[in-house]
Formats: sequence, structure tokens, C-alpha cells
Amino acid sequence: MQTLKVVRQTFTMLSEKRTQVIDITKQIRDIMLSADIKEGILLVNSLHTTCALFVNEFQGALVEDLKTMLERLVVDNAGYKHDDHRYSVCERGNTASEFRAAVLGRNVALGISGGELALGKFQSILFAELDGPRSRSIDIQIMGV
Amino acid sequence: MQTLKVVRQTFTMLSEKRTQVIDITKQIRDIMLSADIKEGILLVNSLHTTCALFVNEFQGALVEDLKTMLERLVVDNAGYKHDDHRYSVCERGNTASEFRAAVLGRNVALGISGGELALGKFQSILFAELDGPRSRSIDIQIMGV
Amino acid sequence: MQTLKVVRQTFTMLSEKRTQVIDITKQIRDIMLSADIKEGILLVNSLHTTCALFVNEFQGALVEDLKTMLERLVVDNAGYKHDDHRYSVCERGNTASEFRAAVLGRNVALGISGGELALGKFQSILFAELDGPRSRSIDIQIMGV
Repeated sequence: MQTLKVVRQTFTMLSEKRTQVIDITKQIRDIMLSADIKEGILLVNSLHTTCALFVNEFQGALVEDLKTMLERLVVDNAGYKHDDHRYSVCERGNTASEFRAAVLGRNVALGISGGELALGKFQSILFAELDGPRSRSIDIQIMGV
Repeated sequence: MQTLKVVRQTFTMLSEKRTQVIDITKQIRDIMLSADIKEGILLVNSLHTTCALFVNEFQGALVEDLKTMLERLVVDNAGYKHDDHRYSVCERGNTASEFRAAVLGRNVALGISGGELALGKFQSILFAELDGPRSRSIDIQIMGV
Repeated sequence: MQTLKVVRQTFTMLSEKRTQVIDITKQIRDIMLSADIKEGILLVNSLHTTCALFVNEFQGALVEDLKTMLERLVVDNAGYKHDDHRYSVCERGNTASEFRAAVLGRNVALGISGGELALGKFQSILFAELDGPRSRSIDIQIMGV
């Protein structure tokens, strides 16, 4: 029996816009390869409350549409109490960003099989910055053999 | 090599309102500590269809805003067939609650590293009651070494 | 100590409608049983960008309501650029389907304990076809002892 490995690695990146979708599949695949785990489970989590992680197609026009969709789904200035200094100590209004992240999700769990991520042909692991620009930490946990 | 452990534990709590957000990070951390798993993966699942589990900031004003946002996203009485006794045997109308749970999500997967949950500074594990008050069971599965 | 197993299995099914919700709990339970893993973690992922996987009640009227809710949440023809041949090479407009999948989620992580899936009484694992009819591949990854 091979020895079980549990590897955690965090990588940091700088987002450049208020809302931005970044394909992080390559960074995550590289971490998986360096961990040398061929069969197992990989988790991706963001360590922040105003960004999202999800699996989807990465295509320029689609990313623009996503911004429009999110702004319609969760409107920006809806009189949120969390954006009001009387009720909250937030440095700037980020309530809409938190809710957009809640709708998209913040954790991705994928299988690793034969040394490859179990992703479909058109699937990428996407990071959505929803309150940038900021420095962001992405947490990868891999467990397997 | 250390022995792989797989630990499952369920805890029950009583919600007090129709819609309520409860920070359950401490309960989950305590279960993790008693399982004595230092490196691995932790899953949190609700065993119900009308409540949600997700990771977000826990702040009073934000929780109030979340209720407002969910009520706007999924309206309460939209003539749902599932709320109608001709099509469904539900004891009371809970369709909006089921869909709010579907939008927020119902499972959280986190890494455990160095005996700590991989959570960011402002991140808590939140339980959202969407059809209370009720008794609710939360299921924790931990696997690791 | 028992030997750690990591099993991956993919199953394919044919959806019959544009939008369709299928209860796949039985197929997944069968895969779990044949893998003979009694304690562990099970992941379900779709390998496509226009369908969703989530845990919810499976009831006829509820499924009809879900379609209505999704169509209201993410409207069909909102002038998406990804549906426009000037910006994208998609064979047919599927932007609304991608976003409905993003809202519902695409991965399910469940515990296995005592040879059973950790699901509540009214919970099923549901597959939502959002751009059918098509052939779809569902990916199961199981890890445990």
C-alpha cells in the first residue's frame, strides 16, 4: 500500500479590477503535479468573503455576461445595513460582493484520477474577484496516494 | 505512517425563527479537535432540504441583509405547485425555502492543516435556517491523519 | 489497518428535454456499493458546463417549480454576448444554461458511513439538465476504507 499524503498549499494573486474572472486551472494543476498525488481528492477554497470559486467554461464574452448577470441578480446599492457605518464597521460597502460570492459558491471539490484532474473538456476552475482590486489567497488541499 | 481515520458525527440544534443564520464554526472545530485529525478533509452537510450551509462573514447587519436578498431572489408566494395540496403532500408551503437552500448550497468541504480548519480571518461556517423553527441535524465527516 | 481505496467511475445518461431534473441517487449508491467503501468521502461532479448537481427533495411539482424559478432568476434571452456569433463560437445560445448551473452548483461532496451515504430522509442527489437533450457524463470519486 502506498502512503497517504495530505498536502496543503496556498497561492496568492493580485486581482486588477472590481469584478474579474480568472482561470486558475493551470496553477492548481501545477500544485497537484508537484504534490505527486495520482489518485485522490482536491479541494480549492478561497480564504475571503468577497470572491468566488467555481467550475465553468472560460470564454471572454461569457465572462462579460456573468458580470451583467450577477449585477442583476444581486443589485449593488439596495440600502444594505452592512454597508452603513451605523450598523457595521466595514471599510467600504461590500455587501453585494458577499452575496454574489454566496450565490456562486466558494469551494470546489474535484477528483484526481490517473494523475489528472477530473474536469470535462470545456471546464475550467474559475476564480471570481467580486470586490477588487486586491491580493487574494487561494487554498488548495489535496489528499490521496 | 499514521493510521487513516474516518470520523462521522452529527449534532442537532434548535432554530428559533423562520429565517435565521447561526455561526456553527465553534461546534465544528470542537468536533474536529475531538476527532484528533490534524491533516485531512472535513465535510459539513445538512440532512434537510430547507436549510443551507455556507462559508461567509458573520455580522449582524449582514445577516439581516441576507434575509432581504433571499426574499427578493426567491419570492415567497409565487403560486408554487409544490405548495398546493392538489400536487403535493407537503404539510406547509416550503418551496421558497427549498430554492433558497439550493441557491446558497448545502455542503461545505474544507481542508484541515496543522490541526486547524483552513478558514480565512473573516470566514465562518454558517447555517441558514430557511423554514424554522425546527430541530436540525448537521452532519460532519472528517477523514485524514 | 484497512487499505485505503480511491475509486473513480463515470456513468453516462441521456437527457430527454431542454430542462429536466433526474434523481440519480440510486446510480450513485450502486457505484458506492460496488466500490465496497464503508467509511469515506464521495464526490459527484458533472463534466459539463450546462448542467447542475445538487442535493434536494425530488418531487414532481417541486421540479416544475424549479424550472419556473430558474427561468425567472436567469432569463433566457438577455442579449448575452456569449450567444452572439460575433463574440463566441458556441453552436447555439447556452449562456442562460451556464449561469443556471453556476447558481445551482456542480459538485456534491457527501460522507459515507457504515456503508451508507450520509443523506437525510427527504434528500436525493439530483442532476439538472439545463441545455438538453444531450448525453451527459457524471463523475464519481470515492475515497475511503
